[in-house]
Amino acid sequence: MLIDIDKEMQARSVGGIIVLGDTTLANPDLTYVVGGSLARGGIYFKRIGGDPLLLTSNLDLATARKYRIVKQTKTFTEFAYEKLIAKHGRDNAYPRLIRMILDQLGISGKVALFGRSDLAGGIYLADQLRKIGVAVIGEKSPTILESARETKTTNEMSLIRDVGLKTGRIVDSIIDSLRNLQNRRGHLYSGKQRAKVGLVKEWISIALAKEGLIAPEGTIFATGASSADPHNAGDPRQELKPGKLIVFDIFPQSERGYWFDLTRTFVVGRADAKTVKLFETVKGAQAAALDSMKDSVPCKKVMMTACNVIELNGYRTLRGLYRGETTNVTSGFIHSLGHGVGLTIGERPYLSLLSTERLTKSQIVTVEPGIYLPRFGGVRIEDTVAITGNGVDILDTVHQDELEVS
Amino acid sequence: MLIDIDKEMQARSVGGIIVLGDTTLANPDLTYVVGGSLARGGIYFKRIGGDPLLLTSNLDLATARKYRIVKQTKTFTEFAYEKLIAKHGRDNAYPRLIRMILDQLGISGKVALFGRSDLAGGIYLADQLRKIGVAVIGEKSPTILESARETKTTNEMSLIRDVGLKTGRIVDSIIDSLRNLQNRRGHLYSGKQRAKVGLVKEWISIALAKEGLIAPEGTIFATGASSADPHNAGDPRQELKPGKLIVFDIFPQSERGYWFDLTRTFVVGRADAKTVKLFETVKGAQAAALDSMKDSVPCKKVMMTACNVIELNGYRTLRGLYRGETTNVTSGFIHSLGHGVGLTIGERPYLSLLSTERLTKSQIVTVEPGIYLPRFGGVRIEDTVAITGNGVDILDTVHQDELEVS
Repeated sequence: MLIDIDKEMQARSVGGIIVLGDTTLANPDLTYVVGGSLARGGIYFKRIGGDPLLLTSNLDLATARKYRIVKQTKTFTEFAYEKLIAKHGRDNAYPRLIRMILDQLGISGKVALFGRSDLAGGIYLADQLRKIGVAVIGEKSPTILESARETKTTNEMSLIRDVGLKTGRIVDSIIDSLRNLQNRRGHLYSGKQRAKVGLVKEWISIALAKEGLIAPEGTIFATGASSADPHNAGDPRQELKPGKLIVFDIFPQSERGYWFDLTRTFVVGRADAKTVKLFETVKGAQAAALDSMKDSVPCKKVMMTACNVIELNGYRTLRGLYRGETTNVTSGFIHSLGHGVGLTIGERPYLSLLSTERLTKSQIVTVEPGIYLPRFGGVRIEDTVAITGNGVDILDTVHQDELEVS
Repeated sequence: MLIDIDKEMQARSVGGIIVLGDTTLANPDLTYVVGGSLARGGIYFKRIGGDPLLLTSNLDLATARKYRIVKQTKTFTEFAYEKLIAKHGRDNAYPRLIRMILDQLGISGKVALFGRSDLAGGIYLADQLRKIGVAVIGEKSPTILESARETKTTNEMSLIRDVGLKTGRIVDSIIDSLRNLQNRRGHLYSGKQRAKVGLVKEWISIALAKEGLIAPEGTIFATGASSADPHNAGDPRQELKPGKLIVFDIFPQSERGYWFDLTRTFVVGRADAKTVKLFETVKGAQAAALDSMKDSVPCKKVMMTACNVIELNGYRTLRGLYRGETTNVTSGFIHSLGHGVGLTIGERPYLSLLSTERLTKSQIVTVEPGIYLPRFGGVRIEDTVAITGNGVDILDTVHQDELEVS
């Protein structure tokens, strides 16, 4: 949470932080400290123990103040930035402006820089600041802001829950549409046309638009053998076939910048025994993992719980790699169990075999076991949940008990 | 163009470049050198005068090879990255892997780093690489890749033209919908409901979805006094009113990562004389600017041409700032004339009063004069055009001769 920034600065002996960027688009750290999106971005300064200061363009000032996150918001013009540019040129004016404000705020000691930026320009800026006496440091992961962002405030949680409700409505509407497909001589039809992945993707896009969400990273709707590859987004030309697995993984973002992540797996019509066993195993793994989760449980242990269920049912997991049984796991549960969700679609904490941290109240994570059988298909079930003191709070309302849609 | 990278490296005495990121999403430099999107990103290496090498995750290898841009594509596993992590830990393994590959490719001398990344982590990486003997440099703008990306290949141009055609169809469909609104007792209706900005935004979202485009930065549909603020996206609750200005600025992105930018201004019903004069002036400014553009014309001169027309008609422009007449221009033509478009929605070249460069064949830029009268409204007309040897090629097909839609 934002309120943790001072604690994290203290732990790392950092005297000040700067978060910058010429837009908040795809710049989660800047969006986070500003409280929303700013078309032209800005520069955020914070001294340890002090109130932050945000610099914006004249055009964004009113928007920045509306967010009410940073009390002190000023424009570049108020710091006579245009005059600095005229005197020193744009390349030299920028570090001088930053140095001037650091001095005004009394920031000394180590200064950490944040914000997504082109590395060439970011390294140039760091080198320039160092030349004029600013003790710029880099940070390995988890950085101060990654640590702060890991737990969510009540407000963030309700923003994410809202994306979850909208995402759920979209998934429900697609299930309804799948239910209305007609099986004629082994082919599925929507009205007079054969049901293809591309058609469903169009339905999904329209449903996203109606809910006011965007999907900057696309949507996975993969069927048959394609579903055995967890990253295969689905081939628009591929036909949906009765009895074939369909993995539908949707990860939209709201206007406020928050994401949600939800996966359901279906079969239109009847599923064979092999498919049913896959589905039941994944459902069992997810239920066991969810049951084991609450504040202070090690993240790795939750992953192990899911692996146990999957291995007991005769499928491989990534644990084989660490037991030295194999150098490559291509079949079975071939990815980690989950990841944090917030202003990015993949952030701390990670529910993986390499995790060393514990679940903490107010984290929001996905729980998404999957089993993939090459050339056959895959099953994945995913919910996004909030960690509480004694369990988890599932943030979507799409109930799935049945694999078969008919 | 990609082919210019060696020339730009030569000009800056750079021995090698590295472009990296854990995704290509919102990472235009990595998308550019890879030729498309990769879910987990990768690391691209290029020695001056040498063929590039791309490292990807096992999951992305097939996709990366499909783009056929980088001939040599390998996985992290092929370089035994997992073993490096086991031996040195993740934080130290990464710079060691990079150093090892630089050596294998015979890259020496200055090395520039690219790719959008969190600054804290990027600076940490640069410092680590420097410690193990890599001469990492930062770059001020224009960087090697910004310069390369400034001119477009025939293939890029056709990808952008394709987004333009789709964008044009969306704009045409919205104009048709505006034309079908009914004026009853001074209010505009769509069927039985009052026509509000939110309704039109929903139409736009659905039209985008049908064309397979996304709008990660939103869409501007601002009416009345709101249209006087060039960054106001429009208030969903606001009603469209007969005779009021509407600025519709749409900037979508395709799955391949390329953007387009198009603005039209309308009045539903009859426009008053003040509004008509605004519209005619902006149209005249755009026509004059377009007429003046071709290979080797100074960018600043094109901006000046638009300013001339606007000032002759009695409105202010940003030139007032530079003449020392004022310290703040809030009315009139208050932004620059245009910017490059490609894998970002705002890149070099810039058609501004501060530009020092010349237009070059194969650049793609917006031409978007606007006049804004606070508390009244604004007019902006924008096309995206390609620069040719003897003029410009307008990349959209939305013709607008009339301000009034009725």
